Amino acid sequence: MKAWVSDFMDNDDEFLVDQLKQHVLSKRGIQVGTDEILVTVGTQNSLYLLASLLGGKGTRLGMEDPGYPDARNIFAHHGAEVVPLGMDDQGVIPGSQMDTCNYVYLTPSHQVPTNVTMSMERRQTLLSQASKKDFIIIEDDYESETNLQAQPHPALKSLDQSGRVIYVGSLSKSLSRGLRIGFLVADAELIEQARMLRRLMYRHPPMNNQITAALFISMGYYDSYLRKLRKSYGEKWQVMSEALERYLPGSIINHTSGGCSFWLQLPDGIDLDSLVSSCATEGIIIEPGDVHFLSSKSPGNFIRLGFSAIAPEAITPGIQILSQVISTQAYPLDCPSRLLVAV
Amino acid sequence: MKAWVSDFMDNDDEFLVDQLKQHVLSKRGIQVGTDEILVTVGTQNSLYLLASLLGGKGTRLGMEDPGYPDARNIFAHHGAEVVPLGMDDQGVIPGSQMDTCNYVYLTPSHQVPTNVTMSMERRQTLLSQASKKDFIIIEDDYESETNLQAQPHPALKSLDQSGRVIYVGSLSKSLSRGLRIGFLVADAELIEQARMLRRLMYRHPPMNNQITAALFISMGYYDSYLRKLRKSYGEKWQVMSEALERYLPGSIINHTSGGCSFWLQLPDGIDLDSLVSSCATEGIIIEPGDVHFLSSKSPGNFIRLGFSAIAPEAITPGIQILSQVISTQAYPLDCPSRLLVAV
Repeated sequence: MKAWVSDFMDNDDEFLVDQLKQHVLSKRGIQVGTDEILVTVGTQNSLYLLASLLGGKGTRLGMEDPGYPDARNIFAHHGAEVVPLGMDDQGVIPGSQMDTCNYVYLTPSHQVPTNVTMSMERRQTLLSQASKKDFIIIEDDYESETNLQAQPHPALKSLDQSGRVIYVGSLSKSLSRGLRIGFLVADAELIEQARMLRRLMYRHPPMNNQITAALFISMGYYDSYLRKLRKSYGEKWQVMSEALERYLPGSIINHTSGGCSFWLQLPDGIDLDSLVSSCATEGIIIEPGDVHFLSSKSPGNFIRLGFSAIAPEAITPGIQILSQVISTQAYPLDCPSRLLVAV
Repeated sequence: MKAWVSDFMDNDDEFLVDQLKQHVLSKRGIQVGTDEILVTVGTQNSLYLLASLLGGKGTRLGMEDPGYPDARNIFAHHGAEVVPLGMDDQGVIPGSQMDTCNYVYLTPSHQVPTNVTMSMERRQTLLSQASKKDFIIIEDDYESETNLQAQPHPALKSLDQSGRVIYVGSLSKSLSRGLRIGFLVADAELIEQARMLRRLMYRHPPMNNQITAALFISMGYYDSYLRKLRKSYGEKWQVMSEALERYLPGSIINHTSGGCSFWLQLPDGIDLDSLVSSCATEGIIIEPGDVHFLSSKSPGNFIRLGFSAIAPEAITPGIQILSQVISTQAYPLDCPSRLLVAV
């Protein structure tokens, strides 16, 4: 209780740092010292700290295209030039564009927004390229908790032999988004710099939440909650996957395994704004995909459908309605049979 | 409970904003709309947001000298030129230096570190000068809660007729430092900008703490705790004030009323480093004052003594020991009688 009311200036709760090290990072194959870990107010804040320290004018930051808009905005806000990197179903494509970058921001566990899990082969290629071409990888381990592989791939950070990976993770999915607990893992020197900047920015993340998180992990709730989460999300993922194959065949373009959403390609020429509002009146909330594309001429026919907050039994009827709305919009006159074909 | 686990993107808990407006800001005479309030991760974070938005290169920020080192560091980090402004026992001295500033950062309730409460006359002079010379005041309402005046002066923000005061406050003293809840009050346009920046920096302060704070205030605990705090701190202030008059006469150079610390001038030529370590071995922790001076040639004979965490009965014996250590150090040979005079 005493710890709650104190100002820790630039320190974190040691118990939490220890728990992160022993029970959270170790699950991702990451073994580091406590001076290589900094607690933050969520992944977004970790990226903001990194962008402030590393991402000024003259910096080239490569990132997946489509990618995570918040990361783009944070680095662009600090003056970095954002370089779009192509994606396939193995993850980001290592290429000559990447070699011109100082930093490459990646989401290998579940790529945002496509949910692609980077293959082991691609991971090795990337790390060797980073070492050869002298760039640093910022690994955002987004939704590693909801991977449905029997043996999830270890984090890039754990495979890194040359100290070229900075890792950011959070307890947003495994504990709570609202508590805003993230962590940054890097060389002790960079962590020291980030700690000094954090000291100026807000001193430290609220201590009551650090202690809550530490107790949650140490008492075994983190592990048991992760098991429940994977089971629940796995079932929903299966239901949604089957519903999409049936009612929107061909819309899934990437092989994925787990995550909390699906990335879908709809028929060319669909009017997304109109689709979003028509769906909303039917009680279906869809996320237009265009915000994720880095280039100005983004294809207008991608959407992301989240399922984490939806009851399993509501998924199939929802996809059925979505399919009907899409058919009406995409083939209003010339192809009325589409609806029947799809169903 | 639902609110805890959600991501609010760029919003705050409406209940907390409403409680701050009705029960916290109203006490300081401040009447604003909910779109003029932003919750932050403490005062330090409010200042960081303001410095990011307003304090770039080419900006002149005036501040009290001696003053709050964190504010200086935050604005200097963003490239602002920090202009030292003189102090007397009425508060900051309005003068020609101030007129050259774009922004003036002030701590009128209890000046950091001198604890001077700005007089009403000085408040009016300052506001009229800000209006005439076209500068903006950033009012950090530090320790307004522990003012011992029968009728504490209203905040500059509440007296402001020309929209020239930005206000920052926190619940650090009245609820808990560890929870890190601060708030920024300004024109709706600036709050909108700060909200967008906060969205990039960390989205929003943890929601469980926002809701805890809102309940704490709405259920009356904030008011009753403030009463207890003022009583407890008032008693300690009185004991310490008397002990200082007795054992370190002449060390208090400003008339102050309340706060959580005393700002003391010690004999010229004292060795502060040696004093700090000698006191530490006697169990007395003192804060050297030099870090508070903005100019490079800071006088080396000022210290700040906090009392908020010390039991009332431990205060007088502590000051007595401090006086003995000072006498030994300041007059090692030529004035052995000083100790007796002082005691």
